[in-house]
Amino acid sequence: MEIVLIGSGSVATHLGLALQSKGIIIKQVFSRNPANAESLATKLGTTFVDDIADLYMDADIYIYALKDSALKSVLRKMNIPNGIHVHTAGSIPMSDFESFTSRFGVFYPLQSFSIKKEVDFREVPICIEASSPEIEQILFNLAKLLTDKIYLINSEQRKRLHLAAVFACNFTNYMYDIASQILDDSDINFEVIQPLIAETAEKIKTLSPYEAQTGPAVRFDETTIARHLHMLNKSPEISKIYSLLSKDIHNRHKGN
Amino acid sequence: MEIVLIGSGSVATHLGLALQSKGIIIKQVFSRNPANAESLATKLGTTFVDDIADLYMDADIYIYALKDSALKSVLRKMNIPNGIHVHTAGSIPMSDFESFTSRFGVFYPLQSFSIKKEVDFREVPICIEASSPEIEQILFNLAKLLTDKIYLINSEQRKRLHLAAVFACNFTNYMYDIASQILDDSDINFEVIQPLIAETAEKIKTLSPYEAQTGPAVRFDETTIARHLHMLNKSPEISKIYSLLSKDIHNRHKGN
Repeated sequence: MEIVLIGSGSVATHLGLALQSKGIIIKQVFSRNPANAESLATKLGTTFVDDIADLYMDADIYIYALKDSALKSVLRKMNIPNGIHVHTAGSIPMSDFESFTSRFGVFYPLQSFSIKKEVDFREVPICIEASSPEIEQILFNLAKLLTDKIYLINSEQRKRLHLAAVFACNFTNYMYDIASQILDDSDINFEVIQPLIAETAEKIKTLSPYEAQTGPAVRFDETTIARHLHMLNKSPEISKIYSLLSKDIHNRHKGN
Repeated sequence: MEIVLIGSGSVATHLGLALQSKGIIIKQVFSRNPANAESLATKLGTTFVDDIADLYMDADIYIYALKDSALKSVLRKMNIPNGIHVHTAGSIPMSDFESFTSRFGVFYPLQSFSIKKEVDFREVPICIEASSPEIEQILFNLAKLLTDKIYLINSEQRKRLHLAAVFACNFTNYMYDIASQILDDSDINFEVIQPLIAETAEKIKTLSPYEAQTGPAVRFDETTIARHLHMLNKSPEISKIYSLLSKDIHNRHKGN
Protein backbone atom coordinates (compact mmCIF):
# COMPACT_ATOMS: atom_id res chain seq x y z
CA MET A 1 0.00 0.00 0.00
CA GLU A 2 1.27 3.46 -0.98
CA ILE A 3 0.38 6.60 0.90
CA VAL A 4 0.94 10.30 0.18
CA LEU A 5 0.99 12.66 3.16
CA ILE A 6 -0.48 16.11 2.57
CA GLY A 7 0.87 18.24 5.41
CA SER A 8 4.00 18.15 7.52
CA GLY A 9 2.96 19.06 11.05
CA SER A 10 2.92 16.85 14.12
CA VAL A 11 0.00 14.64 13.05
CA ALA A 12 1.55 14.01 9.61
CA THR A 13 4.89 13.28 11.26
CA HIS A 14 3.70 10.84 13.92
CA LEU A 15 1.22 9.11 11.62
CA GLY A 16 3.77 8.84 8.80
CA LEU A 17 6.43 7.34 11.05
CA ALA A 18 3.97 4.93 12.67
CA LEU A 19 2.55 3.69 9.36
CA GLN A 20 5.99 3.33 7.84
CA SER A 21 7.12 1.24 10.82
CA LYS A 22 4.29 -1.16 9.95
CA GLY A 23 5.47 -1.62 6.38
CA ILE A 24 3.30 0.99 4.65
CA ILE A 25 5.12 2.94 1.92
CA ILE A 26 5.03 6.70 2.36
CA LYS A 27 5.52 7.59 -1.29
CA GLN A 28 5.66 11.37 -1.00
CA VAL A 29 5.17 14.30 1.36
CA PHE A 30 3.48 17.46 0.13
CA SER A 31 3.61 20.72 2.05
CA ARG A 32 3.37 24.31 0.91
CA ASN A 33 6.26 24.97 3.25
CA PRO A 34 9.33 23.43 1.53
CA ALA A 35 11.49 23.35 4.68
CA ASN A 36 8.85 21.43 6.66
CA ALA A 37 8.18 19.12 3.72
CA GLU A 38 11.87 18.35 3.39
CA SER A 39 12.32 17.82 7.11
CA LEU A 40 9.52 15.26 7.26
CA ALA A 41 10.55 13.59 4.00
CA THR A 42 14.06 13.19 5.42
CA LYS A 43 12.70 11.55 8.58
CA LEU A 44 10.74 9.16 6.39
CA GLY A 45 13.46 8.62 3.79
CA THR A 46 11.09 9.64 1.03
CA THR A 47 10.58 12.46 -1.49
CA PHE A 48 8.72 15.72 -1.03
CA VAL A 49 7.05 18.35 -3.21
CA ASP A 50 5.99 21.88 -2.42
CA ASP A 51 4.08 22.46 -5.66
CA ILE A 52 0.76 20.65 -5.74
CA ALA A 53 1.16 20.24 -9.50
CA ASP A 54 3.94 17.74 -8.78
CA LEU A 55 1.75 15.49 -6.62
CA TYR A 56 2.24 11.74 -7.12
CA MET A 57 -0.98 10.53 -8.77
CA ASP A 58 -0.98 6.77 -8.16
CA ALA A 59 -1.09 6.40 -4.36
CA ASP A 60 -3.74 4.24 -2.71
CA ILE A 61 -4.49 6.73 0.03
CA TYR A 62 -3.96 10.50 0.39
CA ILE A 63 -3.89 11.57 4.02
CA TYR A 64 -4.62 15.26 4.59
CA ALA A 65 -3.13 16.30 7.93
CA LEU A 66 -3.61 20.03 7.53
CA LYS A 67 -4.82 23.01 9.50
CA ASP A 68 -8.62 22.92 9.52
CA SER A 69 -8.88 25.99 7.30
CA ALA A 70 -6.52 24.64 4.60
CA LEU A 71 -8.25 21.45 3.42
CA LYS A 72 -10.66 22.90 0.87
CA SER A 73 -8.21 25.41 -0.52
CA VAL A 74 -5.65 22.65 -1.17
CA LEU A 75 -8.30 20.43 -2.78
CA ARG A 76 -9.39 23.27 -5.07
CA LYS A 77 -5.88 23.63 -6.43
CA MET A 78 -5.39 19.92 -7.06
CA ASN A 79 -5.82 17.64 -9.95
CA ILE A 80 -7.58 15.03 -7.81
CA PRO A 81 -5.98 11.56 -7.99
CA ASN A 82 -8.08 8.38 -8.07
CA GLY A 83 -7.02 7.07 -4.63
CA ILE A 84 -8.89 7.32 -1.35
CA HIS A 85 -8.84 10.76 0.29
CA VAL A 86 -8.98 11.04 4.07
CA HIS A 87 -8.43 13.86 6.51
CA THR A 88 -7.29 13.59 10.12
CA ALA A 89 -9.31 16.44 11.63
CA GLY A 90 -11.75 16.29 14.52
CA SER A 91 -13.81 19.27 13.54
CA ILE A 92 -14.15 18.95 9.73
CA PRO A 93 -17.12 17.00 8.34
CA MET A 94 -16.32 14.20 5.92
CA SER A 95 -18.57 15.89 3.34
CA ASP A 96 -15.91 18.52 2.64
CA PHE A 97 -14.50 16.00 0.14
CA GLU A 98 -17.81 15.43 -1.65
CA SER A 99 -17.47 17.91 -4.49
CA PHE A 100 -13.92 16.71 -5.28
CA THR A 101 -14.03 12.90 -5.22
CA SER A 102 -16.36 10.01 -4.50
CA ARG A 103 -13.81 7.94 -2.53
CA PHE A 104 -13.15 9.55 0.79
CA GLY A 105 -13.22 9.27 4.54
CA VAL A 106 -11.81 10.36 7.87
CA PHE A 107 -8.92 8.88 9.82
CA TYR A 108 -8.89 10.86 13.06
CA PRO A 109 -6.31 9.91 15.70
CA LEU A 110 -7.70 11.33 18.95
CA GLN A 111 -4.54 12.38 20.70
CA SER A 112 -2.61 15.53 21.42
CA PHE A 113 0.60 15.25 19.41
CA SER A 114 3.76 17.27 19.89
CA ILE A 115 6.58 17.12 17.38
CA LYS A 116 9.08 16.61 20.21
CA LYS A 117 7.36 13.80 22.07
CA GLU A 118 7.17 10.18 20.90
CA VAL A 119 3.76 8.59 20.54
CA ASP A 120 2.75 5.02 21.33
CA PHE A 121 0.01 4.52 18.74
CA ARG A 122 -1.29 1.43 20.53
CA GLU A 123 -2.68 3.95 23.05
CA VAL A 124 -4.21 6.23 20.42
CA PRO A 125 -7.90 5.78 19.54
CA ILE A 126 -8.48 6.15 15.80
CA CYS A 127 -11.94 7.36 14.73
CA ILE A 128 -13.01 6.26 11.28
CA GLU A 129 -15.71 7.33 8.84
CA ALA A 130 -15.94 6.50 5.14
CA SER A 131 -17.98 7.20 2.02
CA SER A 132 -18.59 3.48 1.43
CA PRO A 133 -18.38 0.17 3.34
CA GLU A 134 -15.45 -0.85 1.13
CA ILE A 135 -13.44 2.22 2.07
CA GLU A 136 -14.43 1.85 5.71
CA GLN A 137 -12.91 -1.64 5.64
CA ILE A 138 -9.68 -0.35 4.08
CA LEU A 139 -9.37 2.38 6.70
CA PHE A 140 -10.20 -0.09 9.47
CA ASN A 141 -7.41 -2.40 8.29
CA LEU A 142 -4.99 0.52 8.14
CA ALA A 143 -5.92 1.64 11.67
CA LYS A 144 -5.62 -1.95 12.91
CA LEU A 145 -1.92 -1.89 12.04
CA LEU A 146 -1.50 0.82 14.67
CA THR A 147 -4.04 0.27 17.44
CA ASP A 148 -6.89 -1.87 18.75
CA LYS A 149 -8.79 1.25 19.80
CA ILE A 150 -10.80 1.81 16.62
CA TYR A 151 -14.15 3.60 16.67
CA LEU A 152 -16.68 4.19 13.90
CA ILE A 153 -17.68 7.78 14.53
CA ASN A 154 -19.83 9.81 12.15
CA SER A 155 -19.23 13.48 11.36
CA GLU A 156 -21.85 14.76 13.81
CA GLN A 157 -20.41 12.65 16.64
CA ARG A 158 -16.86 13.62 15.70
CA LYS A 159 -17.72 17.32 16.05
CA ARG A 160 -18.96 16.64 19.58
CA LEU A 161 -15.95 14.48 20.34
CA HIS A 162 -13.65 17.29 19.26
CA LEU A 163 -15.55 19.70 21.50
CA ALA A 164 -15.24 17.27 24.43
CA ALA A 165 -11.51 17.01 23.72
CA VAL A 166 -11.14 20.78 24.11
CA PHE A 167 -12.37 20.42 27.68
CA ALA A 168 -10.51 17.17 28.45
CA CYS A 169 -7.20 18.31 26.98
CA ASN A 170 -6.88 22.04 26.18
CA PHE A 171 -8.84 23.42 29.13
CA THR A 172 -7.44 20.80 31.49
CA ASN A 173 -3.95 21.85 30.49
CA TYR A 174 -4.92 25.47 31.19
CA MET A 175 -5.93 24.43 34.73
CA TYR A 176 -2.40 22.99 35.09
CA ASP A 177 -1.01 26.27 33.76
CA ILE A 178 -2.90 28.33 36.36
CA ALA A 179 -1.73 25.96 39.12
CA SER A 180 1.81 26.39 37.86
CA GLN A 181 1.50 30.21 37.95
CA ILE A 182 0.19 30.11 41.53
CA LEU A 183 3.10 27.88 42.62
CA ASP A 184 5.69 30.02 40.83
CA ASP A 185 4.48 33.06 42.74
CA SER A 186 5.24 31.25 46.01
CA ASP A 187 8.55 29.67 44.98
CA ILE A 188 7.10 26.18 45.06
CA ASN A 189 8.36 23.75 42.45
CA PHE A 190 5.68 22.51 40.05
CA GLU A 191 6.88 18.94 40.65
CA VAL A 192 5.19 18.99 44.09
CA ILE A 193 1.82 18.90 42.37
CA GLN A 194 2.58 16.44 39.56
CA PRO A 195 1.58 13.29 41.50
CA LEU A 196 -1.80 14.90 42.19
CA ILE A 197 -2.25 15.63 38.49
CA ALA A 198 -1.34 12.04 37.61
CA GLU A 199 -3.75 10.62 40.18
CA THR A 200 -6.58 12.92 39.05
CA ALA A 201 -6.20 11.58 35.50
CA GLU A 202 -5.85 8.01 36.78
CA LYS A 203 -8.98 8.09 38.92
CA ILE A 204 -11.40 8.50 36.06
CA LYS A 205 -10.34 5.13 34.68
CA THR A 206 -12.35 3.52 37.50
CA LEU A 207 -14.76 6.26 38.64
CA SER A 208 -16.87 8.58 36.50
CA PRO A 209 -15.69 12.21 36.71
CA TYR A 210 -18.97 12.99 38.43
CA GLU A 211 -18.21 10.44 41.17
CA ALA A 212 -14.57 11.50 41.38
CA GLN A 213 -15.34 15.17 42.04
CA THR A 214 -13.79 16.50 45.27
CA GLY A 215 -12.84 19.91 46.63
CA PRO A 216 -14.32 22.91 48.41
CA ALA A 217 -16.89 23.59 45.66
CA VAL A 218 -18.57 20.19 45.75
CA ARG A 219 -19.02 20.34 49.52
CA PHE A 220 -19.78 24.08 49.22
CA ASP A 221 -17.18 24.98 51.81
CA GLU A 222 -17.79 28.73 51.69
CA THR A 223 -15.01 29.55 54.15
CA THR A 224 -12.33 27.93 51.97
CA ILE A 225 -13.82 29.38 48.78
CA ALA A 226 -13.79 32.88 50.31
CA ARG A 227 -10.18 32.41 51.48
CA HIS A 228 -9.10 31.27 48.01
CA LEU A 229 -10.84 34.19 46.31
CA HIS A 230 -9.13 36.54 48.73
CA MET A 231 -5.72 35.07 47.77
CA LEU A 232 -6.59 35.65 44.11
CA ASN A 233 -7.61 39.29 44.53
CA LYS A 234 -4.68 40.48 42.43
CA SER A 235 -5.57 38.09 39.58
CA PRO A 236 -9.06 39.11 38.44
CA GLU A 237 -9.10 36.67 35.47
CA ILE A 238 -8.13 33.64 37.55
CA SER A 239 -10.50 34.76 40.28
CA LYS A 240 -13.34 34.85 37.76
CA ILE A 241 -12.56 31.30 36.64
CA TYR A 242 -12.43 30.13 40.25
CA SER A 243 -15.85 31.64 41.00
CA LEU A 244 -17.53 30.38 37.86
CA LEU A 245 -16.26 26.80 38.14
CA SER A 246 -17.00 26.61 41.88
CA LYS A 247 -20.56 27.81 41.34
CA ASP A 248 -21.16 25.32 38.52
CA ILE A 249 -19.64 22.39 40.41
CA HIS A 250 -21.81 23.24 43.39
CA ASN A 251 -24.94 23.45 41.23
CA ARG A 252 -24.18 20.14 39.60
CA HIS A 253 -23.71 18.35 42.93
CA LYS A 254 -26.15 20.06 45.27
CA GLY A 255 -28.96 17.93 46.61
CA ASN A 256 -26.70 14.84 46.77
CA MET B 1 6.22 4.99 68.06
CA GLU B 2 2.53 5.24 68.98
CA ILE B 3 0.04 7.28 67.04
CA VAL B 4 -3.56 8.27 67.67
CA LEU B 5 -5.70 9.13 64.67
CA ILE B 6 -8.26 11.87 65.18
CA GLY B 7 -10.71 11.45 62.31
CA SER B 8 -11.87 8.49 60.25
CA GLY B 9 -12.23 9.76 56.68
CA SER B 10 -10.17 8.85 53.64
CA VAL B 11 -6.97 10.67 54.73
CA ALA B 12 -7.08 9.04 58.19
CA THR B 13 -7.73 5.67 56.59
CA HIS B 14 -4.97 5.72 53.98
CA LEU B 15 -2.42 7.34 56.29
CA GLY B 16 -3.25 4.94 59.12
CA LEU B 17 -2.92 1.86 56.93
CA ALA B 18 0.30 3.11 55.34
CA LEU B 19 1.97 3.98 58.66
CA GLN B 20 0.88 0.70 60.23
CA SER B 21 2.38 -1.23 57.30
CA LYS B 22 5.71 0.43 58.17
CA GLY B 23 5.63 -0.79 61.78
CA ILE B 24 4.07 2.27 63.42
CA ILE B 25 1.52 1.45 66.14
CA ILE B 26 -1.89 3.04 65.62
CA LYS B 27 -2.94 3.02 69.25
CA GLN B 28 -6.46 4.41 68.88
CA VAL B 29 -8.91 6.01 66.46
CA PHE B 30 -11.13 8.84 67.62
CA SER B 31 -14.14 9.99 65.62
CA ARG B 32 -17.35 11.69 66.68
CA ASN B 33 -19.10 9.25 64.37
CA PRO B 34 -18.94 5.86 66.16
CA ALA B 35 -19.70 3.80 63.03
CA ASN B 36 -16.85 5.41 61.08
CA ALA B 37 -14.51 5.14 64.04
CA GLU B 38 -15.30 1.46 64.45
CA SER B 39 -14.94 0.76 60.72
CA LEU B 40 -11.46 2.30 60.59
CA ALA B 41 -10.40 0.72 63.92
CA THR B 42 -11.44 -2.67 62.54
CA LYS B 43 -9.34 -2.14 59.39
CA LEU B 44 -6.39 -1.27 61.59
CA GLY B 45 -7.05 -3.94 64.23
CA THR B 46 -7.04 -1.29 66.95
CA THR B 47 -9.45 0.36 69.39
CA PHE B 48 -11.68 3.36 68.88
CA VAL B 49 -13.43 5.99 70.98
CA ASP B 50 -16.25 8.37 70.07
CA ASP B 51 -16.04 10.42 73.27
CA ILE B 52 -13.03 12.72 73.36
CA ALA B 53 -12.88 12.26 77.15
CA ASP B 54 -11.69 8.68 76.51
CA LEU B 55 -8.73 9.72 74.37
CA TYR B 56 -5.49 7.80 74.95
CA MET B 57 -3.12 10.29 76.57
CA ASP B 58 0.33 8.77 76.04
CA ALA B 59 0.77 8.65 72.26
CA ASP B 60 3.84 10.16 70.62
CA ILE B 61 1.89 11.80 67.83
CA TYR B 62 -1.75 12.83 67.43
CA ILE B 63 -2.71 13.14 63.78
CA TYR B 64 -5.78 15.28 63.13
CA ALA B 65 -7.29 14.29 59.78
CA LEU B 66 -10.53 16.22 60.10
CA LYS B 67 -12.73 18.51 58.08
CA ASP B 68 -11.11 21.95 58.02
CA SER B 69 -13.84 23.45 60.18
CA ALA B 70 -13.60 20.78 62.91
CA LEU B 71 -10.00 21.12 64.15
CA LYS B 72 -10.38 23.95 66.62
CA SER B 73 -13.70 22.74 68.00
CA VAL B 74 -12.21 19.31 68.71
CA LEU B 75 -9.13 20.87 70.34
CA ARG B 76 -11.33 23.05 72.56
CA LYS B 77 -13.09 20.00 73.95
CA MET B 78 -9.89 18.06 74.64
CA ASN B 79 -7.69 17.60 77.59
CA ILE B 80 -4.55 18.10 75.48
CA PRO B 81 -2.00 15.25 75.75
CA ASN B 82 1.73 15.89 75.85
CA GLY B 83 2.55 14.33 72.47
CA ILE B 84 3.12 16.09 69.15
CA HIS B 85 -0.04 17.40 67.46
CA VAL B 86 -0.17 17.59 63.67
CA HIS B 87 -2.96 18.18 61.21
CA THR B 88 -3.11 16.95 57.61
CA ALA B 89 -4.88 19.91 56.01
CA GLY B 90 -3.74 22.03 53.09
CA SER B 91 -5.63 25.15 54.02
CA ILE B 92 -5.24 25.41 57.81
CA PRO B 93 -2.28 27.35 59.22
CA MET B 94 -0.07 25.54 61.69
CA SER B 95 -0.75 28.32 64.21
CA ASP B 96 -4.24 26.96 64.88
CA PHE B 97 -2.53 24.70 67.45
CA GLU B 98 -0.69 27.52 69.21
CA SER B 99 -3.14 28.25 72.02
CA PHE B 100 -3.49 24.55 72.86
CA THR B 101 0.04 23.11 72.87
CA SER B 102 3.65 24.06 72.20
CA ARG B 103 4.52 20.86 70.28
CA PHE B 104 2.82 20.84 66.93
CA GLY B 105 3.15 20.74 63.19
CA VAL B 106 1.63 19.84 59.85
CA PHE B 107 1.85 16.55 57.98
CA TYR B 108 0.06 17.26 54.70
CA PRO B 109 -0.06 14.47 52.11
CA LEU B 110 -0.75 16.25 48.80
CA GLN B 111 -2.97 13.75 47.08
CA SER B 112 -6.63 13.25 46.33
CA PHE B 113 -7.69 10.23 48.38
CA SER B 114 -10.81 8.13 47.91
CA ILE B 115 -11.86 5.54 50.45
CA LYS B 116 -12.36 3.01 47.65
CA LYS B 117 -9.06 3.39 45.86
CA GLU B 118 -5.68 2.13 47.09
CA VAL B 119 -2.84 4.61 47.40
CA ASP B 120 0.84 4.09 46.66
CA PHE B 121 2.36 6.43 49.23
CA ARG B 122 5.74 6.36 47.50
CA GLU B 123 4.04 8.61 44.92
CA VAL B 124 2.52 10.98 47.48
CA PRO B 125 4.41 14.18 48.34
CA ILE B 126 4.25 14.95 52.05
CA CYS B 127 4.53 18.60 53.07
CA ILE B 128 5.92 19.21 56.52
CA GLU B 129 5.99 22.15 58.90
CA ALA B 130 6.81 22.10 62.61
CA SER B 131 6.94 24.29 65.70
CA SER B 132 10.59 23.36 66.33
CA PRO B 133 13.55 21.79 64.50
CA GLU B 134 13.28 18.74 66.77
CA ILE B 135 9.67 18.12 65.79
CA GLU B 136 10.47 18.82 62.14
CA GLN B 137 13.04 16.02 62.30
CA ILE B 138 10.52 13.62 63.88
CA LEU B 139 7.94 14.40 61.20
CA PHE B 140 10.57 14.10 58.48
CA ASN B 141 11.54 10.64 59.74
CA LEU B 142 7.90 9.61 59.86
CA ALA B 143 7.29 10.84 56.29
CA LYS B 144 10.47 9.11 55.13
CA LEU B 145 8.93 5.75 56.02
CA LEU B 146 6.30 6.43 53.36
CA THR B 147 7.88 8.47 50.57
CA ASP B 148 10.99 10.20 49.26
CA LYS B 149 8.90 13.18 48.16
CA ILE B 150 9.15 15.30 51.30
CA TYR B 151 8.88 19.09 51.17
CA LEU B 152 9.33 21.69 53.89
CA ILE B 153 6.45 24.04 53.19
CA ASN B 154 5.42 26.87 55.50
CA SER B 155 1.82 27.82 56.23
CA GLU B 156 1.73 30.68 53.74
CA GLN B 157 3.11 28.45 50.96
CA ARG B 158 0.78 25.62 51.90
CA LYS B 159 -2.25 27.88 51.49
CA ARG B 160 -1.10 28.68 47.95
CA LEU B 161 -0.32 25.03 47.26
CA HIS B 162 -3.83 24.09 48.32
CA LEU B 163 -5.25 26.75 46.01
CA ALA B 164 -3.12 25.45 43.14
CA ALA B 165 -4.38 21.94 43.89
CA VAL B 166 -7.97 23.09 43.45
CA PHE B 167 -7.10 24.02 39.86
CA ALA B 168 -4.88 21.00 39.17
CA CYS B 169 -7.27 18.46 40.66
CA ASN B 170 -10.82 19.67 41.39
CA PHE B 171 -11.27 21.96 38.40
CA THR B 172 -9.41 19.58 36.10
CA ASN B 173 -11.79 16.83 37.13
CA TYR B 174 -14.69 19.15 36.35
CA MET B 175 -13.30 19.59 32.81
CA TYR B 176 -13.40 15.78 32.51
CA ASP B 177 -16.96 15.85 33.80
CA ILE B 178 -18.06 18.35 31.15
CA ALA B 179 -16.34 16.28 28.43
CA SER B 180 -18.17 13.23 29.73
CA GLN B 181 -21.53 15.05 29.57
CA ILE B 182 -20.87 16.14 25.98
CA LEU B 183 -19.99 12.57 24.97
CA ASP B 184 -23.01 11.09 26.76
CA ASP B 185 -25.28 13.40 24.77
CA SER B 186 -23.88 11.91 21.54
CA ASP B 187 -23.79 8.27 22.64
CA ILE B 188 -20.00 8.18 22.61
CA ASN B 189 -18.33 6.08 25.28
CA PHE B 190 -16.15 8.09 27.68
CA GLU B 191 -13.34 5.55 27.15
CA VAL B 192 -12.67 7.08 23.70
CA ILE B 193 -11.24 10.15 25.37
CA GLN B 194 -9.33 8.51 28.23
CA PRO B 195 -6.02 8.12 26.36
CA LEU B 196 -6.13 11.85 25.58
CA ILE B 197 -6.66 12.63 29.27
CA ALA B 198 -3.75 10.36 30.23
CA GLU B 199 -1.44 11.94 27.65
CA THR B 200 -2.42 15.48 28.70
CA ALA B 201 -1.41 14.65 32.29
CA GLU B 202 1.74 12.87 31.07
CA LYS B 203 2.95 15.74 28.88
CA ILE B 204 3.52 18.17 31.72
CA LYS B 205 6.15 15.88 33.17
CA THR B 206 8.47 17.02 30.37
CA LEU B 207 6.95 20.30 29.14
CA SER B 208 5.65 23.21 31.21
CA PRO B 209 1.85 23.57 30.95
CA TYR B 210 2.48 26.86 29.17
CA GLU B 211 4.54 25.09 26.48
CA ALA B 212 2.11 22.18 26.30
CA GLN B 213 -0.94 24.35 25.56
CA THR B 214 -2.73 23.41 22.33
CA GLY B 215 -6.21 23.88 20.92
CA PRO B 216 -8.35 26.41 19.06
CA ALA B 217 -7.98 29.08 21.77
CA VAL B 218 -4.17 29.25 21.73
CA ARG B 219 -4.09 29.66 17.95
CA PHE B 220 -7.21 31.85 18.19
CA ASP B 221 -9.04 29.80 15.59
CA GLU B 222 -12.24 31.86 15.63
CA THR B 223 -14.08 29.60 13.18
CA THR B 224 -13.70 26.55 15.43
CA ILE B 225 -14.47 28.54 18.57
CA ALA B 226 -17.68 29.89 17.00
CA ARG B 227 -18.68 26.40 15.86
CA HIS B 228 -18.10 25.01 19.35
CA LEU B 229 -20.11 27.79 20.99
CA HIS B 230 -22.92 27.13 18.55
CA MET B 231 -22.93 23.45 19.58
CA LEU B 232 -23.19 24.55 23.22
CA ASN B 233 -26.09 26.93 22.73
CA LYS B 234 -28.39 24.77 24.84
CA SER B 235 -25.88 24.66 27.72
CA PRO B 236 -25.43 28.28 28.80
CA GLU B 237 -23.21 27.40 31.82
CA ILE B 238 -20.81 25.26 29.80
CA SER B 239 -20.84 27.83 27.02
CA LYS B 240 -19.81 30.51 29.51
CA ILE B 241 -16.89 28.38 30.71
CA TYR B 242 -15.82 27.73 27.11
CA SER B 243 -15.82 31.45 26.28
CA LEU B 244 -14.04 32.55 29.43
CA LEU B 245 -11.27 29.94 29.25
CA SER B 246 -10.74 30.48 25.50
CA LYS B 247 -10.42 34.23 25.97
CA ASP B 248 -7.94 33.82 28.84
CA ILE B 249 -5.84 31.21 27.01
CA HIS B 250 -5.70 33.49 24.00
CA ASN B 251 -4.68 36.48 26.12
CA ARG B 252 -1.96 34.47 27.82
CA HIS B 253 -0.45 33.27 24.54
CA LYS B 254 -1.00 36.16 22.13
CA GLY B 255 2.10 37.81 20.83
CA ASN B 256 4.00 34.52 20.74
